[in-house]
Amino acid sequence: MNALPHGGLALSDLDEQLLLPGTKGLPLRESLRQGAIGVQGWNVLRADTSFPVAVLKDSALRHNLDWMRRFCERHRVTLAPHGKTTMSPQLFGAQLANGAWGITLATATQVQVAHRFGVRRVLLANQLVAPADIAAVLSLLHEDPDFDCIVLADSPAGAERLAKAVQAQRLARPLPVLVELGLAGKRAGCRTPDAALALARQVAALEGLVLAGFEGYEGLLATEDREADVRAVNAFLEQLVALVRAADGERLFGAAEILLSAGGSSYFDLVARGFAAVDGLSRPVRAVLRSGCYLTSDHGTYLRHTAEIEAREHSQEEGLRPALEVWSMVQSRPEPTLAILTMGKRDASYDADLPVPLATHRPGGEAAAPTPLPPGCAIVKLNDQHAYLRLPEGDPICESLAVGDLVGCGISHPCTTFDKWQLLLAVDDAYTVRYALNTFF
Amino acid sequence: MNALPHGGLALSDLDEQLLLPGTKGLPLRESLRQGAIGVQGWNVLRADTSFPVAVLKDSALRHNLDWMRRFCERHRVTLAPHGKTTMSPQLFGAQLANGAWGITLATATQVQVAHRFGVRRVLLANQLVAPADIAAVLSLLHEDPDFDCIVLADSPAGAERLAKAVQAQRLARPLPVLVELGLAGKRAGCRTPDAALALARQVAALEGLVLAGFEGYEGLLATEDREADVRAVNAFLEQLVALVRAADGERLFGAAEILLSAGGSSYFDLVARGFAAVDGLSRPVRAVLRSGCYLTSDHGTYLRHTAEIEAREHSQEEGLRPALEVWSMVQSRPEPTLAILTMGKRDASYDADLPVPLATHRPGGEAAAPTPLPPGCAIVKLNDQHAYLRLPEGDPICESLAVGDLVGCGISHPCTTFDKWQLLLAVDDAYTVRYALNTFF
Repeated sequence: MNALPHGGLALSDLDEQLLLPGTKGLPLRESLRQGAIGVQGWNVLRADTSFPVAVLKDSALRHNLDWMRRFCERHRVTLAPHGKTTMSPQLFGAQLANGAWGITLATATQVQVAHRFGVRRVLLANQLVAPADIAAVLSLLHEDPDFDCIVLADSPAGAERLAKAVQAQRLARPLPVLVELGLAGKRAGCRTPDAALALARQVAALEGLVLAGFEGYEGLLATEDREADVRAVNAFLEQLVALVRAADGERLFGAAEILLSAGGSSYFDLVARGFAAVDGLSRPVRAVLRSGCYLTSDHGTYLRHTAEIEAREHSQEEGLRPALEVWSMVQSRPEPTLAILTMGKRDASYDADLPVPLATHRPGGEAAAPTPLPPGCAIVKLNDQHAYLRLPEGDPICESLAVGDLVGCGISHPCTTFDKWQLLLAVDDAYTVRYALNTFF
Repeated sequence: MNALPHGGLALSDLDEQLLLPGTKGLPLRESLRQGAIGVQGWNVLRADTSFPVAVLKDSALRHNLDWMRRFCERHRVTLAPHGKTTMSPQLFGAQLANGAWGITLATATQVQVAHRFGVRRVLLANQLVAPADIAAVLSLLHEDPDFDCIVLADSPAGAERLAKAVQAQRLARPLPVLVELGLAGKRAGCRTPDAALALARQVAALEGLVLAGFEGYEGLLATEDREADVRAVNAFLEQLVALVRAADGERLFGAAEILLSAGGSSYFDLVARGFAAVDGLSRPVRAVLRSGCYLTSDHGTYLRHTAEIEAREHSQEEGLRPALEVWSMVQSRPEPTLAILTMGKRDASYDADLPVPLATHRPGGEAAAPTPLPPGCAIVKLNDQHAYLRLPEGDPICESLAVGDLVGCGISHPCTTFDKWQLLLAVDDAYTVRYALNTFF
């Protein structure tokens, strides 16, 4: 099995680096060249690795990459997946090799990481305000004429900071800016279309900036009421489209194409449909989806959301597969209905849902594949380095769970698990380790 | 200002390493030798750094190191601070230089990190179960006769796993084991003193193991009812002391001294008092406190707990100081009572309390020092990369808060902030950056 396609990124130095004993998840007693991980023959179910260990299922990653490429082709939308989810150059490369137009990021240091590995186009979907952070991005643009970075603005003060910095840097090209439309009571973004249009006029007029389009993040509208969410998301998308039309009517756009961007991982189908019909303007419109979590999905929030997307798409094909799991070992079995696992807040997400126990396996035992855990099993608490697995009474699988047994957990949501691991292991369907993936948080 | 004392650890390679652009918190446009950070003259209040940035107040660290050294001397207890809090070799070195007897850790990979930097004695306050993890620790003991590591057991199955591994490794010295006493419904550990004593007999009898003492973690008893906590903790400590007396009566201990260990960061004063009177046994008893969070305290959970410790100690001197802050910038000011900050779940703890907004500062403005924020200010929500700062109406400081202003936040609790930063910056009282601290999670 080969590593994922690299999409033109410069990843070979990562394979050459020496991993030291103490790297979480790795069973190292001396240093090991990262590129040699795939020939060690380590198998997670045989308990060859250290535990806890974070694994990505290679087949699920490839399936999801292909799924999203075909989704975007079908809807004729552009993908700039949010790289802050994984911050993994190998996954950025695989996304670029599967049709991504660029990588979306959230901070200046994330942009520097992406640039270091050869990403050529970044949508920095955030306000850039600190002088050192503005300077970091502008210096990349200054020194590397083939590198593109688009940033957001949502206030006159913010736009002026950007313009002044561009002028001070004597950047040879204007900085492309998307005006952010926000939502009352929510995160950043202009609170009304009128305010957004006024800011667009200011951006268009400021020396050093060019109005590249409009942007919003509909993911903030997610509630427990899906029908209401769909109405609210569609209304928000209509506001964004109307803004693009109004700004084009005033000839405010300054680049060859107009960018119109939204799309977290819960409602990107609505975004694709909502942005499909924008034509008849002075220049082409590029609809840019930014979903990041499609790549791994999860066993919680996004599993639920992507099932709904597939239902709305009336798709007969298989949907996105959860790719990310954290495996740990039963370290203590102190009460009949309680197992303590070698995994904690340092290893798995706990912000959206607690980890979801999926399966158990006894290394060296008779079973060839992991045994699914029954529905009553739940992680009920995490400490920094421990998980509390509550077991239903009377279930034979649970009653036989013993010290040294493995437990595989799904997570929710991926962003807050990736950032707990500097190295994740890609496994085949038999949980044999095939290659490593780095993260840079 | 010098870096912290190194306690004999091998830290110079860290000063020599090159930090690359993209390192969170650092305003780098080209690589920089880590040891040169202190001569850059960066000042956080002048917004010289990237934001967010995690800072440790050097004066608070030194004060807390000294406070705990004097506390342990006064109570005649030994300190093996929990290193999983910070996983920072520089802080391990400072703790060892300030009287720590060893470093407590939670996992085999953490032990490998500590050994790499020269820590000579580790209390692995956890059950070691995975074959690769047991092998990792035993191979350090095998190859480095001057390295000591004590581990826990709480089950016959766990003890047998350890003994078999020691025999297979042909370790020249027995592995010292502490039997863990637990608490009903809580984490690991034997559920009754009888079970713990039976396990102690087994450990004493197993080839390759030596019974080194008993251990418990009273921090799991913390509730909202302090008086009940104090009674429960004292009762638990009495059980541990009784276990030591019973095991000594049976001549089960096999090392030159008996270890008796407990002590998180909430009730370590009770532990010190509870373990003070254990004498008259067949060999000396060493009472080992394991508090990790004393080093930085915080602005939440541990600030409250340590104030109570100081009250119980009837101390007239200054208590532990919060040392860890995360500074970010106002990136959006979309509503009169809302500011959005460049800081999120990737940057600050959110498991015990949300971050606590302490002060604001306008870089280049008239104020020489940060302005305290009024009590009504609160971080009400974090996204992955954003914080929502809710502002009280009618407060002039809050009303004037603008895009580009800095906000400094305290955190609760330190363990889950340290693990979000591979590099933290130590600052003097004027927030000038003096040196860097690495973490290895």
